[in-house]
Amino acid sequence: MSSLLTSATAIIFAAAVVALLWALIQFTIISKIPVQSGGGSGEQEGLISSGDDEAVSARLKEIYTAIYEGAESFLKAEYTVCFWFVIAFAILILVLVSWGTGWDMARGSMTAISFLLGAFTSMASGYLGMKVAVYSNVRTTVSAQKPGWTECFNTAFRAGAVMGFALCGLGIFMLYGTMLVFKLHYPQPDEWIFLTESITGYGLGGSVIAMFGRVGGGIYTKAADVGADLVGKVVHGIPEDDPRNPATIADNVGDNVGDVAGMGSDLFGSFAESTCAALVIGSSIGLSGGWDAMVFPVIVSGVGVFVCLLCSFIATNIWTVKKEADVEMALKVQLISTTIVMIPAVYFAAIFYLPASFELHSTIGNTILHLSPLKATICVAMGAVGGLTIGLITEYYTSHSYQPVREVAASCKTGAATNMIYGIALGFKSAIIPVIVLALVIYFSFATCDMYGVALAAIGFLSNLATGLTIDVYGPVCDNAGGIAEMAELHPSVREKTDALDAAGNTTAAIGKGFAIGSAALVSLALFGAFVTRIRHSSDDKLFAAGVNMLEPVTFAFLIIGGMIPFAFAALTMKSVGTAAMEMVLEVQRQFDEKPHLLDENPTERPDYDACIAISTQASLKEMVPPGAMVIFTPLLTGILFGVTAVSGLLVGALVASVQLAISMSNSGGAWDNAKKYIEKQPADSELKGKGSDIHKAAVVGDTVGDPFKDTSGPALNIVMKLMAVLSLVFADTFYAINSGTGVFKMA
Amino acid sequence: MSSLLTSATAIIFAAAVVALLWALIQFTIISKIPVQSGGGSGEQEGLISSGDDEAVSARLKEIYTAIYEGAESFLKAEYTVCFWFVIAFAILILVLVSWGTGWDMARGSMTAISFLLGAFTSMASGYLGMKVAVYSNVRTTVSAQKPGWTECFNTAFRAGAVMGFALCGLGIFMLYGTMLVFKLHYPQPDEWIFLTESITGYGLGGSVIAMFGRVGGGIYTKAADVGADLVGKVVHGIPEDDPRNPATIADNVGDNVGDVAGMGSDLFGSFAESTCAALVIGSSIGLSGGWDAMVFPVIVSGVGVFVCLLCSFIATNIWTVKKEADVEMALKVQLISTTIVMIPAVYFAAIFYLPASFELHSTIGNTILHLSPLKATICVAMGAVGGLTIGLITEYYTSHSYQPVREVAASCKTGAATNMIYGIALGFKSAIIPVIVLALVIYFSFATCDMYGVALAAIGFLSNLATGLTIDVYGPVCDNAGGIAEMAELHPSVREKTDALDAAGNTTAAIGKGFAIGSAALVSLALFGAFVTRIRHSSDDKLFAAGVNMLEPVTFAFLIIGGMIPFAFAALTMKSVGTAAMEMVLEVQRQFDEKPHLLDENPTERPDYDACIAISTQASLKEMVPPGAMVIFTPLLTGILFGVTAVSGLLVGALVASVQLAISMSNSGGAWDNAKKYIEKQPADSELKGKGSDIHKAAVVGDTVGDPFKDTSGPALNIVMKLMAVLSLVFADTFYAINSGTGVFKMA
Repeated sequence: MSSLLTSATAIIFAAAVVALLWALIQFTIISKIPVQSGGGSGEQEGLISSGDDEAVSARLKEIYTAIYEGAESFLKAEYTVCFWFVIAFAILILVLVSWGTGWDMARGSMTAISFLLGAFTSMASGYLGMKVAVYSNVRTTVSAQKPGWTECFNTAFRAGAVMGFALCGLGIFMLYGTMLVFKLHYPQPDEWIFLTESITGYGLGGSVIAMFGRVGGGIYTKAADVGADLVGKVVHGIPEDDPRNPATIADNVGDNVGDVAGMGSDLFGSFAESTCAALVIGSSIGLSGGWDAMVFPVIVSGVGVFVCLLCSFIATNIWTVKKEADVEMALKVQLISTTIVMIPAVYFAAIFYLPASFELHSTIGNTILHLSPLKATICVAMGAVGGLTIGLITEYYTSHSYQPVREVAASCKTGAATNMIYGIALGFKSAIIPVIVLALVIYFSFATCDMYGVALAAIGFLSNLATGLTIDVYGPVCDNAGGIAEMAELHPSVREKTDALDAAGNTTAAIGKGFAIGSAALVSLALFGAFVTRIRHSSDDKLFAAGVNMLEPVTFAFLIIGGMIPFAFAALTMKSVGTAAMEMVLEVQRQFDEKPHLLDENPTERPDYDACIAISTQASLKEMVPPGAMVIFTPLLTGILFGVTAVSGLLVGALVASVQLAISMSNSGGAWDNAKKYIEKQPADSELKGKGSDIHKAAVVGDTVGDPFKDTSGPALNIVMKLMAVLSLVFADTFYAINSGTGVFKMA
Repeated sequence: MSSLLTSATAIIFAAAVVALLWALIQFTIISKIPVQSGGGSGEQEGLISSGDDEAVSARLKEIYTAIYEGAESFLKAEYTVCFWFVIAFAILILVLVSWGTGWDMARGSMTAISFLLGAFTSMASGYLGMKVAVYSNVRTTVSAQKPGWTECFNTAFRAGAVMGFALCGLGIFMLYGTMLVFKLHYPQPDEWIFLTESITGYGLGGSVIAMFGRVGGGIYTKAADVGADLVGKVVHGIPEDDPRNPATIADNVGDNVGDVAGMGSDLFGSFAESTCAALVIGSSIGLSGGWDAMVFPVIVSGVGVFVCLLCSFIATNIWTVKKEADVEMALKVQLISTTIVMIPAVYFAAIFYLPASFELHSTIGNTILHLSPLKATICVAMGAVGGLTIGLITEYYTSHSYQPVREVAASCKTGAATNMIYGIALGFKSAIIPVIVLALVIYFSFATCDMYGVALAAIGFLSNLATGLTIDVYGPVCDNAGGIAEMAELHPSVREKTDALDAAGNTTAAIGKGFAIGSAALVSLALFGAFVTRIRHSSDDKLFAAGVNMLEPVTFAFLIIGGMIPFAFAALTMKSVGTAAMEMVLEVQRQFDEKPHLLDENPTERPDYDACIAISTQASLKEMVPPGAMVIFTPLLTGILFGVTAVSGLLVGALVASVQLAISMSNSGGAWDNAKKYIEKQPADSELKGKGSDIHKAAVVGDTVGDPFKDTSGPALNIVMKLMAVLSLVFADTFYAINSGTGVFKMA
């Protein structure tokens, strides 16, 4: 038991505890802001008061409660579905993994337990994120009434930090804690391969919930958003978030359950899977380097917490946000500074925790590779720098400060059709450089440390996860704060302030998406590598000894089937959004038709928000099942029926197509959104005619199509590739147990 | 020299001559129709006269001449660019292939010569197709004035047949003739591997011209079409093909140079490549089976000519088209009957020309496979049936007789945005079954006859090429005939008739596209197999002996780069269409602004058609170069710089992504087009409100976006995968000659 107190354990737990405490501190600071218009502190210079602060405060609380209740009830409904699915799937894991390992019930139950822990941690992360976001939205609105930019920026930023650090702390704590418990059963270094394989269930659990969270939340939020857009903007010409629009509350709930809870689960899944992939591939390191060397991937995540925490002071205390122009810079500085500081920090950790030379078994062939702390650091650094590069390219293609989005905006002059053509072309084109960067990272990290290098690069992509999450949550909080300001009919300048905060968040969110897609590709490849290694060992080098031959007929056949999966997945999820949005439009239309005075300037009656919330909830719960099931059961059935060579084709095909489609869809969506915003900023007598013009209407079509692209299908494609890969790894032994890995049909 | 008179040679040349003669006969029949309104034959019962037949006849001739001159001058300009490119590239081939084979100048020059022959045959096919189409369009218009449906259907159908049979005849004649000449240099069966490799240049030549033809023609036609749509329909509300719209002539020219000439070159390329792939992979058959057995793939094409010719009588003479409902059935019967008759015909040919048992060297490993006529027939049959299945699925997703397109039409009720979401989702979803069919064909044909089976299946897909081409050309001819009827201001019922003919053609064209994409995937795979075999032999089994390992770092890195190529290609081509269309809109707008009386009911002045033709011409010539160059030089540079393992990743990645994207884009485009047509057919008081309503306007946006999807980027993606693969095969020895296939950078 002395190993519990080794220095690796100490620093990892320290990082987890610090992260959780830091989240608590941030939360305490936010909680001190009262939900009162005008801050409740009497007159203050520069305060944007709303005249009747009492009534406004009551309205603020009313809206806050409505959003909170909507989000709470949706997550409860969603997690109830997830709960039963997870229980059933855990039993399946227990049975199949135990059977696949020759009724090694320990392996089966440990995998099932870590699956459950991963799933529940993911749900907890999502729930927590939603709570914090809803809690902070209204407080950001209130802060925006105060003079200056510092306070409202800091409130939203701190809200993000609560989520970012809490999730990292919880993730590290649960994962490492579970590993230590499993180590009681597998104390010897040569057994750690089983330990790491069992822990892979944790990644699978995180990923399964991420899938449902992303898809369910994504459908919810975009059904409401698209529905509100279609009726609100195009048909009746009332502004976004206007309280007269019955879909507004659902739209705001959606931001919290989709963009915050869904995304939280997504990034938790990435963290869990990348760590598990690195642990499985690197399990042989334990033989020569000991426990501390083997858990190096977790140490990197721990180091990341400290780096992100330190760098966060730059935004909140050192270079505080004093004017609008500071916002985007403050957020970008966070991403860049954490990336830069990470590299030496990881190097020191590597020198401290890794032996000067240690050994790794290669993925293909029976070579023993000799690695060093420097080599490991290089791989992590390549990932971190690669992630930042992809992020900045994403920004170039989706921010209206640059040429590509302005071209899309200009294409609206000839109508919605050219806007669509330009936007889709932009998305397709935006994949070029990120893919080349990924290819470079893959090649060089593999050349440096074999497949372990790829896994480390994936961890490098996510090393500043706490910061990435902070910024990702910051965006929807500002968006929601603006929505609340509009609904509570605060002074328009409050809305302008939150809009400016949100705009900067959109840009940096795009960078975050670049990180997420890039890391997903590397994680999937690493997991696939682990799968191959696993099968190779189980089959005593009868399978995959010379690699994975893509000219094997069954492999090639499944390569193109795998390539089809992301397209089918995107089709299902997009259409779900479309269908739900159309229902939403019809419901809103019905309300306006039945009660035309809802549209009066100062209506005496509120619309039926709950009807719209119900549509989004039902649609997302119903529609999240088919795409989720497709992604989960395709690799499972492929492995069982057609064997491991089929699975290898499937995974690689899905990876290749997902990367391109995920980047393209996210960036097309982001570009359309910002092209619309760019047009809105133009005066009516300019070339682009500004808000309300035909050009603007054409841009709104793009923005609406872009909603499911960038917030439902696109980001969920990351999970598609990771989930399929981690699932195959968990069931690798099971697949091999069926006719020596040739499946029920005994494929040659 | 006695081999010149073997029975294989006899049947192949007989097929070529019969095909050419048959094309001539069909052409003679068409040429007997005078270009005179009312047929020039005085009064006739049921004739749709236009009152002043003299003036109309003059107008018909005027339009015919304008289209003819526009098409002729564009093709001249396009082929001039192609000519110089081809000459330069032939020199490159001569030098690189000679160098790669240790200065074997015979190999280099034979490859270069067959490249030139392939390129010139392709240009000749395209030019011929354009000539015939332009010649027949106006005659179809005139025939549509006559009573009944038989004559106008037959005119358009015969126009297609001229192109279909002439292209097949020419292709077979040139390819086989070249082979016989090369055989003088390589008379021994063990040298035929060099013969077949040299002949691969023929496929490359066809493919290069197909690329420029498809892309150049595709940009031309869609720039004009989209431009005319945007201004004509949306902005000013004048009907399509209205003579007052300055872009109409360019639009009609585009149909001939893009949909006919471009597509002719495309399908010629498919024919040439699939035959070359089968010949290269099957070259070892010559050792045990002799020349006739080796040239079996060409025999299959010859048999196809006879089958298609016989079945064409069903449409023109047996079950003639007597009413509107017959049209679609007549065309579908052609496709189905030729597929059914092909199978026994190929079986008889196999029994007759193939030995009862013959040997083939396997692609991977050093196995000798024992094949039989039955096995070969099974592979061809799987291709033919697979092609038909994919075609019928394509029809299901793109015809408005079925649920999917009607859903897209219904989605227009909530505007253009939902139409876009539904249309894109439909395209993505429509890839599922075709990809599964392809996977089945690949697996079973490979299992039956190794990679040779895949090549035979590809030939099976294209075995009824003459019929496929007939139908593909039939569509644009009807479309153009309608355009001419509108422009010449014939009685509206003439236009209704040609529209009905065209609608059926659209459906069957969709089926044809399914065939084309499926065959392209198989051809690419077969060519890739041939590439691997070639490298394996050159390297004495040092490379690819155990297959192509996708976990090789450089292979995997290029796998995702390959997956990016089709997206980048689609981005470039779509944006070219968008840019050119916007220029077109501005030009048309300028003309309307400068001469507002152009829009009078009976304008006294004609618009400046030539200005629009010039925009399309310049745009397509300028814009076809970057995507074409990307596709040609990416594999070439990859092979030279990074070696053959990089090329293998690149080709497979491109194949996997191209298949999905090509199917999706073609089907989304087809569905949008037909959703619009479906809405147009609804009465104004129906749920979909019919032509001119807001719902219709939303549908027009989809149709416009769909234009480059289905007629520029989508079909050109077929060529992307084939061209990259055939190019790599041609330069295989050159790549291997650079540092033993590791490239300039000596990739491990």
